[in-house]
Amino acid sequence: MTTALPPGSTIGILGGGQLGRMLALAGARLGLRSHIFAPEEDSPAFDVTRWHTRAGYRDEAALETFARSVSAVTLEFENIPVGTVEFLSRLVPVRPGAKALRCAQDRLNEKALARELGAMTADFAVIDSLADLERALAGPLEAPAVLKTRRFGYDGKGQAKVMRREDAAAAWAAIGGKPGAILEAFVPFEREVSVVAARGIDGGFSAFDVTENEHRNHILHRSVAPARISEATGRMGVDTARRMAEALDYVGVFAIEYFVTGSGAGERLLVNEMAPRVHNSGHWTIEGSDTSQFEQHMRAVAGWPLGSTRRRAPAVEMINLIGDEMGEWTRIAADAGAQLQHYGKAEARAGRKMGHVTRLLG
Amino acid sequence: MTTALPPGSTIGILGGGQLGRMLALAGARLGLRSHIFAPEEDSPAFDVTRWHTRAGYRDEAALETFARSVSAVTLEFENIPVGTVEFLSRLVPVRPGAKALRCAQDRLNEKALARELGAMTADFAVIDSLADLERALAGPLEAPAVLKTRRFGYDGKGQAKVMRREDAAAAWAAIGGKPGAILEAFVPFEREVSVVAARGIDGGFSAFDVTENEHRNHILHRSVAPARISEATGRMGVDTARRMAEALDYVGVFAIEYFVTGSGAGERLLVNEMAPRVHNSGHWTIEGSDTSQFEQHMRAVAGWPLGSTRRRAPAVEMINLIGDEMGEWTRIAADAGAQLQHYGKAEARAGRKMGHVTRLLG
Repeated sequence: MTTALPPGSTIGILGGGQLGRMLALAGARLGLRSHIFAPEEDSPAFDVTRWHTRAGYRDEAALETFARSVSAVTLEFENIPVGTVEFLSRLVPVRPGAKALRCAQDRLNEKALARELGAMTADFAVIDSLADLERALAGPLEAPAVLKTRRFGYDGKGQAKVMRREDAAAAWAAIGGKPGAILEAFVPFEREVSVVAARGIDGGFSAFDVTENEHRNHILHRSVAPARISEATGRMGVDTARRMAEALDYVGVFAIEYFVTGSGAGERLLVNEMAPRVHNSGHWTIEGSDTSQFEQHMRAVAGWPLGSTRRRAPAVEMINLIGDEMGEWTRIAADAGAQLQHYGKAEARAGRKMGHVTRLLG
Repeated sequence: MTTALPPGSTIGILGGGQLGRMLALAGARLGLRSHIFAPEEDSPAFDVTRWHTRAGYRDEAALETFARSVSAVTLEFENIPVGTVEFLSRLVPVRPGAKALRCAQDRLNEKALARELGAMTADFAVIDSLADLERALAGPLEAPAVLKTRRFGYDGKGQAKVMRREDAAAAWAAIGGKPGAILEAFVPFEREVSVVAARGIDGGFSAFDVTENEHRNHILHRSVAPARISEATGRMGVDTARRMAEALDYVGVFAIEYFVTGSGAGERLLVNEMAPRVHNSGHWTIEGSDTSQFEQHMRAVAGWPLGSTRRRAPAVEMINLIGDEMGEWTRIAADAGAQLQHYGKAEARAGRKMGHVTRLLG
């Protein structure tokens, strides 16, 4: 605990969305101040702390002033430029660091690391041209498959299904037709699950219960903990998460998304992707766990011991409120079993995550 | 629900201490913004919201600007001048209003109201001079008794025990020797309990479980819910709270502190005092109840329906961290069963409430 930042310390957070907002709220509980750094004037995280800097991620003067006003820096989304993290790292500890970010920003690196550590992934091929794509579809990776940009995709953006070999040109055009893509074999999965876990600066590791996730239109719709998988499969998932975190010298909360294939003794996990940050599928922990993923992350970043991840109910459900669905707030507010979290966003654009509702079940 | 303030609305909070801080944090969950109005530069609540005004409670220009920037106003402590609330009330709804504040600022009014509604209190006498005090001690109110200022007392300040009739002059001097005091019969109580409850703008009412409180040096040390009293006694306490709230047209969370005397069929509650605000003995609700007292208050002030007050564990314990006790934060942070709330105060003065720790029990 000699390296722990005491209450009253300020944590810098790169990114001002709902994840940064919930991190700042969780930090306040521990007496940790948050300074948000984000380019958008209407950043929801600006509303819940006294300190923010509105500037671009490549504005070195602003970054330097920011770094000198905080005791450690973290990030709320993975598409922060690695150069920004490298620049800040020369002035202040950044947790997680550039190594983790560089891996998580590229689907190829993620999959390569997972395989190196003995975990399974979907079969894949690197695609830098339409010719690469046609070659892959002719050989080892028959359709159906999914063509994805290696970098900067989220919520289904930068993805195209390739149902038949003849769809290659259309799919290539759909994702922008630029080098830096990956073709992944279509995985006929039973379900999608995630492990949200934390690693401390002392190497301590702690995972929340494996969570089962249901997507709609490529956006997370519903998470339930615990997931309907065997204990052995769950242990495998947590073990892979631990080994990935160790390989990346990771500090903080992160998530590994898995596909579950087969059943019974044939149940298997395939690593889909890693998010080097708190994760939508961990929002249930705010009410459902002794320590929320947000508090856990702030503890790790501040060098505190990790908190208890004991689940507080037989099951916990989280449902996202997307776009217009927040219009239902009066009904939700009147529902005794529903616990509302509103992200403070003014404009309910289609597909935009506006808040979520948690229920302790059973 | 037609009068409910939607998410994105700003609630003004008079007072910038830990109660205002926890109100702002709870409001953020619901998408409600908080604007803190307080005179002290180091107000802990300033740290957790983007909006604050640092000004005195009698600065009408500052109050007017504040009122015009918010949709409703509430308060985090009862010693706000009634004139401030009356001034603001002409510009914006203030919840709770001047009527409740006027009652709660005066021990005589509190006791008179409680008795009018059929509740019991300690015997008391109005004391405006040493002669009054000597007369009371000679007659109906024999020592031991407690002499208290009627207004602006808290955490044992403005109180003096009168163990013998001969102590009258010393006690009178100890509380400042000014008109506006009250002499209360010493109550040989079994325990102290409180009812923390809320009333909505529609008259809806909801109480948390009756909480048992243990004081040290006149400052709350420990609260446990539920209190060790009979169901019937608990119902009486909640019923008195409801009737007091109705009599005061109360909106928001408030607390009634009771002395419990006797036992078994002889168990009785005596109203000690009312706090027109969220209350230290309700802090256990942050983890221990489906809705915390802070969220409940923000719901009431914003005109939302009250939330569920279901307790989440067989028992819940809250222990205050006073002065130096926050120095123990590294030990507390490492204790898996302890949930820390730090109030963000820089200086650990003796007797100052620095934070608290909650445990879900059993």
